[in-house]
Amino acid sequence: MLELKERDGLARICELKTRHGTVTTPVLLPVINPNHVTITPKDMRTKLGVQMLITNSYIIKSTPELKERAESKGVHELLGFDGPIMTDSGTFQEHVYGDVRLDHQEIVKFQASIGSDVGTILDIFSEPEFTKRQTEEAVDETIRRAKESVHLKGDMLLAGPVQGGIYPDLRERCAKELSQLEFDVHPIGGVVPLLENYRFSDVAEVILASKKGLNPSRAVHLFGAGHPMIFPLAVLLGCDMFDSASYAKYAREERIMYSTGTRFLRDLHDLACHCPACSKTSIPELKKMDRDERTKILAEHNLHVCLREINTVKNAIHEQAIWELVEMRARAHPALLEALKVLKEHKKFLEKYEPASRRGAFFYCGPESYDRPTVSRYQERYFNRYRKPQTRVLVGFEEAAKPYSRTYYSEMVRIAKSVDASFMVSSFFGPVPIELDEYYPIAQSVIPKALDAEVKEKMNAVMERHAHQHGYPLAVMWEGEETLRFLQDMVSGGKGKLDLDFQRCRAVLDMQFGKGAGDILDLGKVELVKSERTGKIRNVLIGGVHALSMRASDGRFTLKLEGAKLLMKVLPSPRMRVKIQDEPAEFAAKGNNVFAKFVVECDPDIRPGDDVIVVNTNDELAATGRALMNSEEMSAFKRGVAVRVKDSSD
Amino acid sequence: MLELKERDGLARICELKTRHGTVTTPVLLPVINPNHVTITPKDMRTKLGVQMLITNSYIIKSTPELKERAESKGVHELLGFDGPIMTDSGTFQEHVYGDVRLDHQEIVKFQASIGSDVGTILDIFSEPEFTKRQTEEAVDETIRRAKESVHLKGDMLLAGPVQGGIYPDLRERCAKELSQLEFDVHPIGGVVPLLENYRFSDVAEVILASKKGLNPSRAVHLFGAGHPMIFPLAVLLGCDMFDSASYAKYAREERIMYSTGTRFLRDLHDLACHCPACSKTSIPELKKMDRDERTKILAEHNLHVCLREINTVKNAIHEQAIWELVEMRARAHPALLEALKVLKEHKKFLEKYEPASRRGAFFYCGPESYDRPTVSRYQERYFNRYRKPQTRVLVGFEEAAKPYSRTYYSEMVRIAKSVDASFMVSSFFGPVPIELDEYYPIAQSVIPKALDAEVKEKMNAVMERHAHQHGYPLAVMWEGEETLRFLQDMVSGGKGKLDLDFQRCRAVLDMQFGKGAGDILDLGKVELVKSERTGKIRNVLIGGVHALSMRASDGRFTLKLEGAKLLMKVLPSPRMRVKIQDEPAEFAAKGNNVFAKFVVECDPDIRPGDDVIVVNTNDELAATGRALMNSEEMSAFKRGVAVRVKDSSD
Repeated sequence: MLELKERDGLARICELKTRHGTVTTPVLLPVINPNHVTITPKDMRTKLGVQMLITNSYIIKSTPELKERAESKGVHELLGFDGPIMTDSGTFQEHVYGDVRLDHQEIVKFQASIGSDVGTILDIFSEPEFTKRQTEEAVDETIRRAKESVHLKGDMLLAGPVQGGIYPDLRERCAKELSQLEFDVHPIGGVVPLLENYRFSDVAEVILASKKGLNPSRAVHLFGAGHPMIFPLAVLLGCDMFDSASYAKYAREERIMYSTGTRFLRDLHDLACHCPACSKTSIPELKKMDRDERTKILAEHNLHVCLREINTVKNAIHEQAIWELVEMRARAHPALLEALKVLKEHKKFLEKYEPASRRGAFFYCGPESYDRPTVSRYQERYFNRYRKPQTRVLVGFEEAAKPYSRTYYSEMVRIAKSVDASFMVSSFFGPVPIELDEYYPIAQSVIPKALDAEVKEKMNAVMERHAHQHGYPLAVMWEGEETLRFLQDMVSGGKGKLDLDFQRCRAVLDMQFGKGAGDILDLGKVELVKSERTGKIRNVLIGGVHALSMRASDGRFTLKLEGAKLLMKVLPSPRMRVKIQDEPAEFAAKGNNVFAKFVVECDPDIRPGDDVIVVNTNDELAATGRALMNSEEMSAFKRGVAVRVKDSSD
Repeated sequence: MLELKERDGLARICELKTRHGTVTTPVLLPVINPNHVTITPKDMRTKLGVQMLITNSYIIKSTPELKERAESKGVHELLGFDGPIMTDSGTFQEHVYGDVRLDHQEIVKFQASIGSDVGTILDIFSEPEFTKRQTEEAVDETIRRAKESVHLKGDMLLAGPVQGGIYPDLRERCAKELSQLEFDVHPIGGVVPLLENYRFSDVAEVILASKKGLNPSRAVHLFGAGHPMIFPLAVLLGCDMFDSASYAKYAREERIMYSTGTRFLRDLHDLACHCPACSKTSIPELKKMDRDERTKILAEHNLHVCLREINTVKNAIHEQAIWELVEMRARAHPALLEALKVLKEHKKFLEKYEPASRRGAFFYCGPESYDRPTVSRYQERYFNRYRKPQTRVLVGFEEAAKPYSRTYYSEMVRIAKSVDASFMVSSFFGPVPIELDEYYPIAQSVIPKALDAEVKEKMNAVMERHAHQHGYPLAVMWEGEETLRFLQDMVSGGKGKLDLDFQRCRAVLDMQFGKGAGDILDLGKVELVKSERTGKIRNVLIGGVHALSMRASDGRFTLKLEGAKLLMKVLPSPRMRVKIQDEPAEFAAKGNNVFAKFVVECDPDIRPGDDVIVVNTNDELAATGRALMNSEEMSAFKRGVAVRVKDSSD
């Protein structure tokens, strides 16, 4: 039911179709307690622009008057809200008031009967303090109930919560088993006690473990997370839905939410907010109001702030700057910073979802920035994919203004006149061959000069690894003219000129499409079309045909159909291929986008944003395009585009 | 004219009195170009709550129609604004259009004649590229003009801009010389080219150099700084006023300001803002509007965001969390982070303004947090003021839950039974004797477990310094029961019981009031009154009289009059004294606060928030109280309270 629209790694903008309309995620569902309405559902819609609500079916079912009205008129009329409504099942009530006895099938049937758009099964809540044994039992019982409940959903969407306490293996197993069943949404349950105690690194571990086990096409709901502080991090890790009772609960306690934390009204000197609720009042006025009125205004403020943070997160996904947002927001509380530091242990998983390149530049925000998967991917590809030119000498340059090849142009020309040399810059990202200086993220990054000790240590380790395996007979750091004289004494036989362009094509092909891809340059005469204005490579013709176009934005190639033909000669199947059913392949060949549901197989090394080759089941070329998904996602998603076709045969 | 109300280091909330009302700083003055009004001054006041405007007297003077109206009706009626108006002088126009010829005295007279509340002299703009010689000439000419202009101000307040380009020594000299003249406001000039090129570390250096030279009672205006990104850092460094033409300029270029940076309208998917301007529109609507209408709405948004950031900064000053805000906002751009890293070179200067303790906890936000003056002050006082108890053994504990004395209570009791030992924890802040575990910032800090390498290195260096000079015959790290057995074998002669309370009083006295202060405990029998609920020390009686009260909030003493008497015996004048004129001293003795203008002399080691002894010119005790200022400030300020009196003789 989920359709992927935009993404930045695991963070994504999706559409979730329900019977009462389509919701764009990430989305926050305000909790409506029908016995205790602080802001009416109507105001939620018209004044706050709320897309979707959540209410508790257990409360409705156990309040005779509500039950009767819900059963006769439906939950939408009960609440006075014509948009999508999700219902919770009473799991928490069962957990807290141990004597509540609920029938897990009956509660799903009840939710379907009152017209809930997304119902929830009655799972078993695990406290973080539970032993592994206790937690395992709760997981097993949750899975058992899930199996017994899922067929009752009818045309309601159904949510199957992932339990497993603070045990990553249990979370992952629970997620895997639930993914086998026809659920639409997977809440991550049992996190409220962690959130309330600022155990954000545990929350991060729990989300990651769950995501590792979950089918990536399912919507993920972080159950009970309703503070804006947690939204950016949770979205970065792949959460799509949140719900908040906190907006009202905090308001009753006179606590005011900000994206940077919570403040008591009594401690504030200014609301420092211009939301519609705050714009028409002030702290002295609030203090004079009667309690209910004040609570309502504070609740509106809290909800406005939550909704705005969701929109800020969405903007960050659109501009592919979610890491920067998370790293900034992590300074709202040391516990968030601690959670951020957890992510480096999961680089390998995160890298699978990491976009090939980004719309915006890489902004350094602190030592944690070095642990983003973009950095390790660059290094991994440099060491595993990059093939050094066959020169005798490697000349290293210091970090400098970007692009490096412009900064060091005159030095390189002088050296190349008499010495057969390659050139490299020791950068934040590791060793950067000069011909890769426009390749994302090298040129598209803003790194301060003063780096943190932590980062310098890690950079040194990478440069040492490079030093051990670079394989040039001679390597020197450029220290001015004396370096040139030294090189002239030691070696001779320069080509007489600098030829970066060909090297650039070769290096980018290998880095982008995999080792060996650069060999297509040997398959025919290579001609380059360069921009008159910038001097940058624009088109690459091989054997007289236009095979590749280089994007100025990220220094990578857009693959033309002719280029794909050549690549298929040097890269055996399934490399860079998205194999799709034969009939859709004919459509793709006519220029239509490729839908995920038609994907048969896919190179596991394909990443979102990669330029890919679309083939039919016989590995016959249909089109080229840009992947919106990685291979796990292409297999999992049943809706939406997997590859945006760029060039096709017809 | 400036009166200090609240502060967090150099960041401060002040009142600036003008003929058209009192302004609370930090304040943003929107620029009104009378030839080109985007938002009317009336809307500024009523819709946006703007306190004060700035307009350019040169433009008024050189536009005949405006000049005539301004001269006959005054600038307030010209603009239609009855609040305070500052005027600029045309310095920038003189600089940019070299042929503009202005008479520097005439322009000041003109500003006075049109009723400007704060006029500005015609200084000389220095570009960052100017050589030191060129810049020096500009500074000399600025000072010459300042001297010739200042007597013309009449009852107008007058602004004397600090120039000096990027040369700290010239900035400081210019600031010092201008401070000798009767100016009210000191703009820091020539920073726009730095701001436009994101040279924020240069901006930080320039502000700091200027502040070092300036009289601290003068309002400091960062001329031309109108982007919310820079406000928190600039306020942290002591800027009080900002002006913004950017809100309108950016709007015309369809650039949208956020506290986290700027976005082009075309790149945004959602305004992600609920200011009054954004609340009534959307991106599709904005795109459809005619250009002028769109510009007006974007200008309103930009100004709302600027004003809200000022309010956020004010809140941070009230809660004394300005460092946390700055460190968070520094992630908006790597250049801001770079600027933050500059501050560690100025710790000594910043420490002079650093509060004794804070209302809120110390939040760790990244490796830069270690460079806050609070950290170095704790270490400096530990090494210079703390006197270790005369025990034979020092037992060190690992970092743990706070307060440490509760966490390690049972261990300490067991050790004390048979070994004469002192106890210490190696903490983020350095070595913490167990008896200082409630002293700010030790207990009042939230530090993540996973620390950055940079910080660990620095912590190790401090612990090494400690190891070299701790002076205990034996020091061991606690590693459980075997440590105890080892100690029992090595030494004997424990007191049989743990007596932290007396040690705590002594250590806090020395740390808070200076080495030797703890000796007042030897001047009479010491009795402690402890909280029944928390077990913490509340009152200290010495020789039967109530001398000190310990604050639960920061673990420091509030000084009673009897305590001051004792302290005066062990601390020679002027230590911890604020010496004031004799007549005001009599008022202080009656419980009245001490105004800065009556301060004759003051211990240079007094810091804002310190508990001080108020004496008359004969060093006779009048009262005790809390300093709101350090000694430079007490000498400089002519208005406002220097010491809030807590205990007095009458």
